Amino acid sequence: MEENWSAMQEKAVQWIQEAGELLRASLEESLVIETKSNPNDLVTEMDFKIERLLTKKINKEYPGHRILGEEEAGADITDTDNIIWIIDPIDGTTNFVHQQFNFAISLAVFENGIGKVGIVYDVMADEWFTALEGKGAYHNNVKLSKLKPAELKEAIVGINARWIKNEKIPYARQMRNIVDESRSTRAYGSAAIELCYVACGRLDSYVNLWLAPWDFAGAEVLLREVGADISTIDNKRPSMLEKGPYLAGRPGLQEKVRGMLNS
Amino acid sequence: MEENWSAMQEKAVQWIQEAGELLRASLEESLVIETKSNPNDLVTEMDFKIERLLTKKINKEYPGHRILGEEEAGADITDTDNIIWIIDPIDGTTNFVHQQFNFAISLAVFENGIGKVGIVYDVMADEWFTALEGKGAYHNNVKLSKLKPAELKEAIVGINARWIKNEKIPYARQMRNIVDESRSTRAYGSAAIELCYVACGRLDSYVNLWLAPWDFAGAEVLLREVGADISTIDNKRPSMLEKGPYLAGRPGLQEKVRGMLNS
Repeated sequence: MEENWSAMQEKAVQWIQEAGELLRASLEESLVIETKSNPNDLVTEMDFKIERLLTKKINKEYPGHRILGEEEAGADITDTDNIIWIIDPIDGTTNFVHQQFNFAISLAVFENGIGKVGIVYDVMADEWFTALEGKGAYHNNVKLSKLKPAELKEAIVGINARWIKNEKIPYARQMRNIVDESRSTRAYGSAAIELCYVACGRLDSYVNLWLAPWDFAGAEVLLREVGADISTIDNKRPSMLEKGPYLAGRPGLQEKVRGMLNS
Repeated sequence: MEENWSAMQEKAVQWIQEAGELLRASLEESLVIETKSNPNDLVTEMDFKIERLLTKKINKEYPGHRILGEEEAGADITDTDNIIWIIDPIDGTTNFVHQQFNFAISLAVFENGIGKVGIVYDVMADEWFTALEGKGAYHNNVKLSKLKPAELKEAIVGINARWIKNEKIPYARQMRNIVDESRSTRAYGSAAIELCYVACGRLDSYVNLWLAPWDFAGAEVLLREVGADISTIDNKRPSMLEKGPYLAGRPGLQEKVRGMLNS
């Protein structure tokens, strides 16, 4: 049976719209924040609430589909067979609780490891990043162009100062060299948003050594549609089941970035 | 004669609104970009156009006032006597030409070195940051609270990865330590916007070793209204006439940041 990916996207956009309203409303009240392993890894009441809301909607509408979420859903998933919904209820939880902007809901539908539907919703900016496999990527209903190659010295790279703060951090030396040769760097604190910025050209390259599938899945569908180069450091396809390095950017530019990470 | 600062602010907001519309329209067309000294220091046709537009309006309405601008106006100004308008027509020119978002028009009116009117307009986000001395600071017409103290380990600090990329950069080692002890860092590429983020609590501290008066003047009026700690590295008042280090953040937190920069 051929799936109706477009109908799936339409429903998901509605659910995310509803979730976004809950998130905006929650910022009017005070939040119950618990720390996970460290102060950088906050998770909030709302993180669970949004994941449960989306999980409930998906289970009701698509009872045969599996769900992989950041908080609870799909902890037992060990393969990418058939259809999997991949959800990050709040990407950029530190931004959510601390800045109250620059956080996103990310949702993707993958089939046998291939991204079919991708949605990243920047809740406070009310920016929608959406894609359907083979149908192009969109930023607020404007179709995004294919990415053109760029030189590193002309490129704005998404790298956080924390990732190069000391030599003990893996690849800190190599990332410092990338920063040095680039035009400049930016850091917004949400991987899903930063990857969408690569898709729409606000960033030329993004380097992150520790991303989970729910962080990148939604944006990846956009990135593939605009012809981005997506890889691990050793130029493999990033895993849909485990955390690891995730590099994305303009074609050509990424060969240079990988070369420097491997030097 | 008592000046009517509120009327001045009202007029300036109108002029900036007009300038913002020109900037948004210009992004629909292709841009004539010239490089200044290096690829990071872009200045565009629009930079001159906006400065001339604002200068013309100020000269017509307030013929006795001096004007200090980034591009042309007030290169001969060597004192802070009487009334000076301080203009940055586009703060974040790299963002303007490369990202087409996260740039701002900054305007301030100072009298004898004291900020009376401050306006920073984030053009694409349509966010207004405004202040009148003694009347409080506003973000889109919502009054901002006084800044509370914070611990560095709980703080989000505005530091760009470029400023710590190698040991040759002054204070790179000290800034790496600040990054290390902070909760996280962010970099948006516009000092005027980043300083307004400090004023509204999105950032807790901002460290920049090379800011010009037109970069910080508009935001400084907001920062003083919310009780921010503003200083150079050696805890002096930043110069209104020369480029130099500019640190701003929550009270208490900034003593720690300065201490680390001086260690």
